[in-house]
Amino acid sequence: MKVKPLGDRVLIKHIQEDEQVRGGIYIPDSAKEKPQEAEVIALGTGSKDADGKPVPFNVKVGDKVLTSKYGGTEVKVDGETYLLVREDDILGIIEA
Amino acid sequence: MKVKPLGDRVLIKHIQEDEQVRGGIYIPDSAKEKPQEAEVIALGTGSKDADGKPVPFNVKVGDKVLTSKYGGTEVKVDGETYLLVREDDILGIIEA
Amino acid sequence: MKVKPLGDRVLIKHIQEDEQVRGGIYIPDSAKEKPQEAEVIALGTGSKDADGKPVPFNVKVGDKVLTSKYGGTEVKVDGETYLLVREDDILGIIEA
Amino acid sequence: MKVKPLGDRVLIKHIQEDEQVRGGIYIPDSAKEKPQEAEVIALGTGSKDADGKPVPFNVKVGDKVLTSKYGGTEVKVDGETYLLVREDDILGIIEA
Amino acid sequence: MKVKPLGDRVLIKHIQEDEQVRGGIYIPDSAKEKPQEAEVIALGTGSKDADGKPVPFNVKVGDKVLTSKYGGTEVKVDGETYLLVREDDILGIIEA
Amino acid sequence: MKVKPLGDRVLIKHIQEDEQVRGGIYIPDSAKEKPQEAEVIALGTGSKDADGKPVPFNVKVGDKVLTSKYGGTEVKVDGETYLLVREDDILGIIEA
Amino acid sequence: MKVKPLGDRVLIKHIQEDEQVRGGIYIPDSAKEKPQEAEVIALGTGSKDADGKPVPFNVKVGDKVLTSKYGGTEVKVDGETYLLVREDDILGIIEA
Repeated sequence: MKVKPLGDRVLIKHIQEDEQVRGGIYIPDSAKEKPQEAEVIALGTGSKDADGKPVPFNVKVGDKVLTSKYGGTEVKVDGETYLLVREDDILGIIEA
Repeated sequence: MKVKPLGDRVLIKHIQEDEQVRGGIYIPDSAKEKPQEAEVIALGTGSKDADGKPVPFNVKVGDKVLTSKYGGTEVKVDGETYLLVREDDILGIIEA
Repeated sequence: MKVKPLGDRVLIKHIQEDEQVRGGIYIPDSAKEKPQEAEVIALGTGSKDADGKPVPFNVKVGDKVLTSKYGGTEVKVDGETYLLVREDDILGIIEA
Repeated sequence: MKVKPLGDRVLIKHIQEDEQVRGGIYIPDSAKEKPQEAEVIALGTGSKDADGKPVPFNVKVGDKVLTSKYGGTEVKVDGETYLLVREDDILGIIEA
Repeated sequence: MKVKPLGDRVLIKHIQEDEQVRGGIYIPDSAKEKPQEAEVIALGTGSKDADGKPVPFNVKVGDKVLTSKYGGTEVKVDGETYLLVREDDILGIIEA
Repeated sequence: MKVKPLGDRVLIKHIQEDEQVRGGIYIPDSAKEKPQEAEVIALGTGSKDADGKPVPFNVKVGDKVLTSKYGGTEVKVDGETYLLVREDDILGIIEA
Repeated sequence: MKVKPLGDRVLIKHIQEDEQVRGGIYIPDSAKEKPQEAEVIALGTGSKDADGKPVPFNVKVGDKVLTSKYGGTEVKVDGETYLLVREDDILGIIEA
């Protein structure tokens, strides 16, 4: 069973906090909005620009990304929790 | 008796909670917005892009979809309850 | 005496509640926004798209439609009460 | 002394309540927004569409129209009270 | 010393209340927004439309205009008080 | 040390209040928003219109301008206080 | 380990307050919004204009910039704290 996101949405899976520390990215404790590490699981059906040409995604399946902690919609598929977010809510790609 | 949605609207029917568990999608208990499983019953009359060309729907009749729990307008037709939502409010398609 | 709606507005007449039940559409009692059945009485003067071409209406005079319960402007013409709504506020067409 | 409205504005004059009843349009007593009958006195200098072509007015001087009760700017010219409204605030034209 | 307004702004000078009565325009006492009479003193540097063509002003220096009582920025030049307003905030031109 | 403003921003320096009186512009005491005199110190890197053509600035370095009292970001460079504002927040140019 | 910002975002690193004073930029104590000095560490994947052409960044890696104190998302990479901001939130470039 899979979920195909619609439009410019992306299905991601948050990386657990302990994995997150091992990965070298640590979210500091401050009043600032804190991003979360996640992995891209599935890309959406895509959107079109003003000329009707498809807009390519800047992320690909398997990318480790930083996303806002707030936003997106949680969904559990076969016991696993995922998040549906718009690509614009992805802040950056973590490069190894 | 049928309802033909106008514009980019879609008529959907929510899948009951017990069916929803059998279907393998479980909505976790958290502060996050929770989506609901639904089936697409009818597509709208469609919308046009800036060049006046029709915008195809990304969903089709019979698709199992995830939608926001909030939003849309409930309507009962021949004793059955349906929901009229804009296609952009559909988060993703559930693939078996 | 008639009213010709301006732009993308449509003049509709709500169908009485008892007729509404006979017609097979029943508005369930819930916290959701409830639509109302209405009949299209007159179309507006129409709007133009970005290229200046007229945008055709998706409804026609005589259509039975579902509209939001809130919105639009009530007007009484020759003792009958009508409602002026924008076409985008019409949710769907009821097909017999 | 006259007032030439700027842009898409229209100068209108509200029809008194007693005339309004004689005219056959009666504004029902409800929680809905109530329109008012008015006569178009002067059209604005007009607006342009995206291609720079003038957008024609859908109303003409002398038209009896329905407008929202709220909105527009009152102005008294030579002792008479008029209202400056945007054409989009005119709901419909009353046809005899 | 002069002020050249930037963009679609216009420099206007309000006409005193007693002059205003002599001029035949009287602002009625009601809950409606009340416009004020003013004279156009200087036009702005102008704005461009989507094609980069200059948008001509609909008012000219010397025009008597009606403006909203609220809005614009007061400025005193050589002891005289003026107002900088966007042209779209001018409601109409008073024609003698 | 200099600051090059980004995009449609302009670096300005407010003229002190006593200079401001000598300059002949006096900000009247009222409930209206009060502009401030300033001198343009540096223009931004500029913005593009819809066709990708650079939009020229309407002000130039050295211009005396009127700006809103509120808005912009204060910055001190080598002990002097400047303000970074968007050009659209400049109300007018003071001509001697 | 690196972070590649998505779209028009830029990865910056704030310059410590003592360095900030040595650098000659001092943020005055007032009610105005106060910018912060930062260094550009990485540019985003970029955005497209209406014609689908890439929009070049106005800043480059290594630039010293002024940014709003509020806004952006903090992220710690390998023990260092960075900020992900949209390029439009960068106010200006500090030139030596």
